[in-house]
Amino acid sequence: MKVPIFSQRVRGLEASPIRDILAVIERPGMVSFAGGLPAAQTFPETGVFDVPRETLQYGPTEGEPALREQLATELRTRGLACDPEQVLILSGSQQGIDLVAKLFVDPGTPVAVESPTYLAALQVLRFFGADLRLIDVDDTALLGAALAGTAFAYAIPNFRNPTGRCYTTAEREALAAACDATGTPLFEDDPYRDLAYDRCDTRPIAARLERASWVYQGSFSKSFAPGLRLGYLVCSPDLSAYLVRLKQAADLHSNRISQSWVLDQLTDPDRYERMAALVDTYRARRDTFASLLHEHFRDLATWEVPPGGLFFWLRLATDAMIDTRSMLAPAIDRGVAFMPGEPFFPEAPRDANAMRLNFSHADPADADRGLAILADILRETTSRVTAALPA
Amino acid sequence: MKVPIFSQRVRGLEASPIRDILAVIERPGMVSFAGGLPAAQTFPETGVFDVPRETLQYGPTEGEPALREQLATELRTRGLACDPEQVLILSGSQQGIDLVAKLFVDPGTPVAVESPTYLAALQVLRFFGADLRLIDVDDTALLGAALAGTAFAYAIPNFRNPTGRCYTTAEREALAAACDATGTPLFEDDPYRDLAYDRCDTRPIAARLERASWVYQGSFSKSFAPGLRLGYLVCSPDLSAYLVRLKQAADLHSNRISQSWVLDQLTDPDRYERMAALVDTYRARRDTFASLLHEHFRDLATWEVPPGGLFFWLRLATDAMIDTRSMLAPAIDRGVAFMPGEPFFPEAPRDANAMRLNFSHADPADADRGLAILADILRETTSRVTAALPA
Repeated sequence: MKVPIFSQRVRGLEASPIRDILAVIERPGMVSFAGGLPAAQTFPETGVFDVPRETLQYGPTEGEPALREQLATELRTRGLACDPEQVLILSGSQQGIDLVAKLFVDPGTPVAVESPTYLAALQVLRFFGADLRLIDVDDTALLGAALAGTAFAYAIPNFRNPTGRCYTTAEREALAAACDATGTPLFEDDPYRDLAYDRCDTRPIAARLERASWVYQGSFSKSFAPGLRLGYLVCSPDLSAYLVRLKQAADLHSNRISQSWVLDQLTDPDRYERMAALVDTYRARRDTFASLLHEHFRDLATWEVPPGGLFFWLRLATDAMIDTRSMLAPAIDRGVAFMPGEPFFPEAPRDANAMRLNFSHADPADADRGLAILADILRETTSRVTAALPA
Repeated sequence: MKVPIFSQRVRGLEASPIRDILAVIERPGMVSFAGGLPAAQTFPETGVFDVPRETLQYGPTEGEPALREQLATELRTRGLACDPEQVLILSGSQQGIDLVAKLFVDPGTPVAVESPTYLAALQVLRFFGADLRLIDVDDTALLGAALAGTAFAYAIPNFRNPTGRCYTTAEREALAAACDATGTPLFEDDPYRDLAYDRCDTRPIAARLERASWVYQGSFSKSFAPGLRLGYLVCSPDLSAYLVRLKQAADLHSNRISQSWVLDQLTDPDRYERMAALVDTYRARRDTFASLLHEHFRDLATWEVPPGGLFFWLRLATDAMIDTRSMLAPAIDRGVAFMPGEPFFPEAPRDANAMRLNFSHADPADADRGLAILADILRETTSRVTAALPA
């Protein structure tokens, strides 16, 4: 049988670590710190949903007019000057990454990204052939030089995936100024903004731009339900027509039943009360997780307590070079999943001495048990690696 | 303001005629022959739908196991040797075209397509830079030569869009043999198979392959409801892992509420009765439409009565060269939408002397009124074009 000839882009396509991990976390009894899975008890009550009959027909590529209207109103309260015409409903915010990459990236196109950053964004950008450059907001003086010549800058300012960090106001201003000065479009990904546990400035960077083009996207996966696969983007008017055409070529339009359901949720009088309860639940889980980390990992790793989002990011304290990917198989064997650090890094050699732990999904007893097992495996791995070093 | 620099592929992106037309067909009173819109009265009763709570969480990229299982069983009855592992649930079959194009097409990659064919497939293939070659099943002797060196062959054997033609058994065998002989993967798109009004051989070409790789895809848009944006593909085992990764990068997975609802519909004891009623409704609409065409267009165009699907394809009878795109604005002004022939052609110069008319959406009174208006506009256009010719 003749082997099919694939495109160049597929020849470089890596197996996704998320996918391989998602395949095992549904095993009964598995404690998963791996994905960014919301706790199921935070989902809105669904009960029975009255499906509006008109949502069964084909609909507009841009999304339901009433939902776009509602989102534009909300986005204006975040400081984004935006009209309903600039809002595009997405089949999840992962789709926004695919569309923006299609819009800008040819093989070799320079794109600026944070390091570390969302691994599935890196996967898509590499797939389209991007030449990845680094955004370092800690070094604002060099930001302009880093952005110069890039097609766009991709950033997650609120509760960054994987580190959980929130950009300071000064960092936001600096990135906006650098985009404006260099004419670099900003692609701002904001899936976690509703999950803020401590006070921080979460005003979008896109709202601070004066000249540069921009795409700002959000998700309903964290605040409503990921199974809907629904998100949205809003962009500067110069990009709208292109992104709408790319969306149409990708899947014509997004699921209309979900759009109708999300609009009901967004306009539900109990919405803010439900979100406040969700934030309280997650804050408590974060705090419990921080205590458990202190108990099990205080001599093994360092971390910051994230002011929002879904993740703790652990840097291993050992001097031994440990690639946490080597811990994954033994951890899964013992019923614990986590995300190794390596796939979050855009640059080579990637920094593999880290791991990302989700705190929203496991209940406290499972988290305790899971972290004890992970600490054990890390100790075993460290002593094995150290023993193998030349004396 | 600095103008963003887009990718090469976007610089060639054409405005979609479908999109521009869909934007006007929701105007009250518009008679639309343009899209492939199912008649709303054929949609399943929805009433209230009990949303299973577990479908709110993230799910597997490949789709819900029970739905994949059900589809594999159904596909085996169509003659496709297939396992649930080979089934991938899509966010509509448009997504399958995006994924297959990503899998195979670099700029300049030869791809074989029918002429005319589905315009949004052409849009995606051109977008990824395909060099389009023609499949002509009327000339089976040349099929092998036409396929040689192409990355894959894209075909809609059942009730082709836009012509409504159904491949004969001999044509099916010939295309299968040519794919096998040249080692060309087959991409078989089968959205209309449930809409068969006359007896024809609809057994998939993929089921007749002995060696070549294949992707076969179907849709729930025509038999259930397009607003769900749900479809599926099944492929030879050598392609599965790649397509799953591409799906993950595109949108993680498809809407789980829709998957649950479609599985309910597929296993509903009334399913076959409902489908038989839908086919009867559409057959009656097709027959009425054929009579109305005879009344309004018999001196203006030629057509075949389609044995299935959703469209009549009219070739204009006039000797004058008329690009039916020039009729679109006056038609929409008078409340009628249709699809000009030009965008369905892969080759240049495109044959513009045709139009595609959907018969499933408009009720008979509207169809009569709409066709009378279109015939009027065609007569006016023809006399204007003829008058402008040198004597």
